[in-house]
Amino acid sequence: MNKLLDLAKKRKSIRNYKEDDNIELEKILYALRVALEAPSGRNCQPWQFLIIRDKETKKIIRSICEAAEKEFHMKINNEFKEWLKKRGITWRKTFLTEAPYLILVYSNKECPYSIQSTWIAIGYLILALEEQGLASLTYTPSKTIEINKALNIPKKYRLETIIPIGYPAKEKEKEPRMKPSEKIFIDEWGKPLKQ
Amino acid sequence: MNKLLDLAKKRKSIRNYKEDDNIELEKILYALRVALEAPSGRNCQPWQFLIIRDKETKKIIRSICEAAEKEFHMKINNEFKEWLKKRGITWRKTFLTEAPYLILVYSNKECPYSIQSTWIAIGYLILALEEQGLASLTYTPSKTIEINKALNIPKKYRLETIIPIGYPAKEKEKEPRMKPSEKIFIDEWGKPLKQ
Repeated sequence: MNKLLDLAKKRKSIRNYKEDDNIELEKILYALRVALEAPSGRNCQPWQFLIIRDKETKKIIRSICEAAEKEFHMKINNEFKEWLKKRGITWRKTFLTEAPYLILVYSNKECPYSIQSTWIAIGYLILALEEQGLASLTYTPSKTIEINKALNIPKKYRLETIIPIGYPAKEKEKEPRMKPSEKIFIDEWGKPLKQ
Repeated sequence: MNKLLDLAKKRKSIRNYKEDDNIELEKILYALRVALEAPSGRNCQPWQFLIIRDKETKKIIRSICEAAEKEFHMKINNEFKEWLKKRGITWRKTFLTEAPYLILVYSNKECPYSIQSTWIAIGYLILALEEQGLASLTYTPSKTIEINKALNIPKKYRLETIIPIGYPAKEKEKEPRMKPSEKIFIDEWGKPLKQ
């Protein structure tokens, strides 16, 4: 048993993908079927998933994202700059064209708790991708209007995240997690659970 | 294999719990350990989990929530009233005192994408509870200030949801989900994936 914990521990955010790897669409579909089972406010199921595999479309998305990222990276403070540098993160978002698949996750703004519900489904989705042996990242572009225009997305939908999917090009360590004693309290705020 | 899909399909929102059932705290802790593995914006890990098992504290939380729910239920439209009635949902939140455990999930407002990241972790959590054979619900109270005051929560934390945990008192059907062809598009918006 205890399988979900192993899966969750193994799953890490991947920013470098092998290009053009032969990934069965069935694996992606399996993971999306898992996501569709998530609960949602008033069972509105606010999510919509758009799978992109066409190289030209990925290029358009990447160029829009990188233009916004360049602006963003000019404004950030030194501490965050250092954090990014350590991880080799720049304004370049190569994963948007390298990854064989992108999933754009949208939420219907007219549904109650649309953001919250959609992110539960994203939690389901990335675990299911891991179960299929596929790496992923939840990349949240800073400007989404132009992407939505380029892809003809109806106005009531909000782009929550872009998830590149594929096999990792480089091995990397998972970012460390804080201890349960720091994150789990019992009976009252600040009282750690004895383990 | 295909275990996560089975788990996700089985998991449903439960509003009626058996009281005082003997649930090992270890099971709750297991599920929380899964949640702590979720990814988060800048690895900030914005989540804090507060486990409540004390009957008196649960009563206080329930009475605050029900006062707000009474107000809320007076204002809702007929269509939504009908939806609630069909499911036997009223302003009464008995699950807040019936369930042996409540987990209050907080997000640190100072972290980037704190809401999104915390709801990924909630997705992980409810799947892990299901894996442990425990039922749950993500209940989002409409007013949280008084709860936070009663529990001495520092100002920078936002109450995202209250999750009652236990064994179901009544069997119920899972709310139906829309078809994958309605929710998954490929290559362009509106183009369903052939299955």
